[in-house]
Amino acid sequence: MSFDAVDVIRTKRDKGELSDEQIDWVIDAYTRGAVADEQMSSLAMAILLNGMNRREIARWTAAMIASGERMDFARLSRPTADKHSTGGVGDKITLPLAPLVAACGVAVPQLSGRGLGHTGGTLDKLESIPGWRAALSNDELMHQLEDVGAVICAAGDGLAPADKKLYALRDVTGTVEAIPLIASSIMSKKIAEGTGALVLDVKVGTGAFMKDLADARELAETMVALGTDAGVKTVALLTDMSTPLGLTAGNALEVRESVEVLAGGGPADVVELTVALAAEMLAAAGVTDVDPAEKLRDGTAMDAWRRMISAQGGDPDADLPVAPEKHVVKAQSTGVLSGLDALAVGVAAWRLGAGRARKEDPVSAVAGVEMHAKPGDQVSEGQALLTLHADDTRRFDRALESLADAIQISSAHTLTPLVIDRITA
Amino acid sequence: MSFDAVDVIRTKRDKGELSDEQIDWVIDAYTRGAVADEQMSSLAMAILLNGMNRREIARWTAAMIASGERMDFARLSRPTADKHSTGGVGDKITLPLAPLVAACGVAVPQLSGRGLGHTGGTLDKLESIPGWRAALSNDELMHQLEDVGAVICAAGDGLAPADKKLYALRDVTGTVEAIPLIASSIMSKKIAEGTGALVLDVKVGTGAFMKDLADARELAETMVALGTDAGVKTVALLTDMSTPLGLTAGNALEVRESVEVLAGGGPADVVELTVALAAEMLAAAGVTDVDPAEKLRDGTAMDAWRRMISAQGGDPDADLPVAPEKHVVKAQSTGVLSGLDALAVGVAAWRLGAGRARKEDPVSAVAGVEMHAKPGDQVSEGQALLTLHADDTRRFDRALESLADAIQISSAHTLTPLVIDRITA
Repeated sequence: MSFDAVDVIRTKRDKGELSDEQIDWVIDAYTRGAVADEQMSSLAMAILLNGMNRREIARWTAAMIASGERMDFARLSRPTADKHSTGGVGDKITLPLAPLVAACGVAVPQLSGRGLGHTGGTLDKLESIPGWRAALSNDELMHQLEDVGAVICAAGDGLAPADKKLYALRDVTGTVEAIPLIASSIMSKKIAEGTGALVLDVKVGTGAFMKDLADARELAETMVALGTDAGVKTVALLTDMSTPLGLTAGNALEVRESVEVLAGGGPADVVELTVALAAEMLAAAGVTDVDPAEKLRDGTAMDAWRRMISAQGGDPDADLPVAPEKHVVKAQSTGVLSGLDALAVGVAAWRLGAGRARKEDPVSAVAGVEMHAKPGDQVSEGQALLTLHADDTRRFDRALESLADAIQISSAHTLTPLVIDRITA
Repeated sequence: MSFDAVDVIRTKRDKGELSDEQIDWVIDAYTRGAVADEQMSSLAMAILLNGMNRREIARWTAAMIASGERMDFARLSRPTADKHSTGGVGDKITLPLAPLVAACGVAVPQLSGRGLGHTGGTLDKLESIPGWRAALSNDELMHQLEDVGAVICAAGDGLAPADKKLYALRDVTGTVEAIPLIASSIMSKKIAEGTGALVLDVKVGTGAFMKDLADARELAETMVALGTDAGVKTVALLTDMSTPLGLTAGNALEVRESVEVLAGGGPADVVELTVALAAEMLAAAGVTDVDPAEKLRDGTAMDAWRRMISAQGGDPDADLPVAPEKHVVKAQSTGVLSGLDALAVGVAAWRLGAGRARKEDPVSAVAGVEMHAKPGDQVSEGQALLTLHADDTRRFDRALESLADAIQISSAHTLTPLVIDRITA
């Protein structure tokens, strides 16, 4: 069936519902180039402002999946589970999580992306390990999943090409912040990837995409419904992103912290979230008799990490690169650290060189922000709170600008829970 | 000053006001190609859905004027007045109006367009006159205005190029129907053209762009304010477009009817609107001592028409082409003709060949619809109501489809006024 792009746009512009046939047609025609970028962007703006209902979102997601290939892990000897985070500052959870879940007997096919803007990218972090490579063929991916049980690699171009094209368009047309489009973008890739179970870490707070709890909840509920309807056992945690996760934001800095967690140490919040997400992934994959916290303590998660890194050419024993330039930010007063703003720290890490403004830009392995205190900690005037890491001292000024109002020191602080809520079908 | 296109889009998307500097930048950058089509279309959709206030519309219009050249008629020996219609079916008023106003001592620089969709184009109509040409240089235009007092010609590419580019974009992205963008598009061209006075004929009804009186009034008020603020004496008439103007819709058919009006005859509604608009143009140009109706009766308007056509290479005495194929639509019952739908007749004329679907398409000079009765007329079963004209009998079926529900015959009909309201600053 063929439609006119302007009629489809007008339907949504005038607050109508898009039919299944209109959605199938517009996604396919856009992928083929028969619907132009300027038509899809005005449709995306109309969707952002007028919304889509659950049926429309489900069909939109299915149409994006149908634009490309689907993977299938059914012939693996163990169940599969994947995790997706909507992105935050210092969010290195994937690094300890994938080998931990593998160590518990569930295979983790983690197809990841690179960082854009103030949130870091998992692949960028792992590339600070000498020799490690992100690109795997489908055969290599399948073999490593069977052999090691965990893969973190770049998603191939074959999965949901419509989403790839649409995401790039939304990025330059002010149409990223539409819950129906965010949900369908994430879920089309995860469903096409073929995971049996999926745990979503939906961040809320200044450093997250969703600043508002109600929006985060709507996004989580939408994605859980999409996954469930597509036969993927899906659950979401709403987690706090008002302050960075752990004590580092940066590439090599976060790998180092992840290895500490795998060694049984590391910051309490990173350990807490890693274990909570692992437990969800195991439960969703039907494995209920293994305690992931124990696998961190007994070294089996670390063994899986070492095998996972080695299998992709990395040297788990290599020294990670360190920054030639550092700058310390000190406490201006004595009291309780009551705020350390996630967005400000994320932007500082980005400006120091850890992230990129355009997808072609290179990133620095060593740049980032190291934190010496977390909200709730007692601090004294003149004490080191942050250390900025960079390749070049000229990076410090703009990073410090973004940190100007990032730190609050008060007489008291009420800690908020890290896991705010759990959303199931 | 430089801005980021995504920031400008987000401002309007989030219901904010665009600053003067943002508007100046985005129009200039779009004209230069530094803002991409897909960015401007998502901005246009955000404007359509979230609106612009009067200040934003005025600045948007000024920025589009500043994108090109401005004409200046100050050195002419007489005042200038122009008319713009928002487009309707059978709306040939420009043809008798321009020479009539010239005959009354006011120069009319009528830069016109071609038809698109179901509304006809003034240039398409005049091109059915053998030899007549639409393209004039600025020098030819100025000379003819001084010498004859009336010019109807194609607008050059130099006036408001930003509008030209934006209009083509809106046409394919479902963003035509935004009052701020319609008003700024029309007024940027008319202000750049340099007319001293401007009368707007804002149509309302099924055959018009604005189906709703409140929308038409808002558009008229917006345009009158824009013209007035730019120093152009501007007034608008809201006129009925629920049924076609006159008894013809088509190119040569409408020229023939226009000549009848100039000869002192013609349908009453065409005469009424021509005289009403002429009186407004004369008053706006400061000429209050001439009665335009008299100039139709005494033949001086016809003299001006003949000089205007001849000056552009046309032969005012040439026979106009006639259609080789005709099809008569008869009354199905006896009674009062209570409805003859403007949109249906416009679409029929278009499908018969009088209009174009794409701007590259040719139009037929002879195709169109001839009406033998107007709403309010008594009709008898079997009487001819319409004659369809075409180059080819294969055109009739789809034209008849559009006319299926166009004709209403009842026991009574209440006539509505042609001029509904008058809007001044």
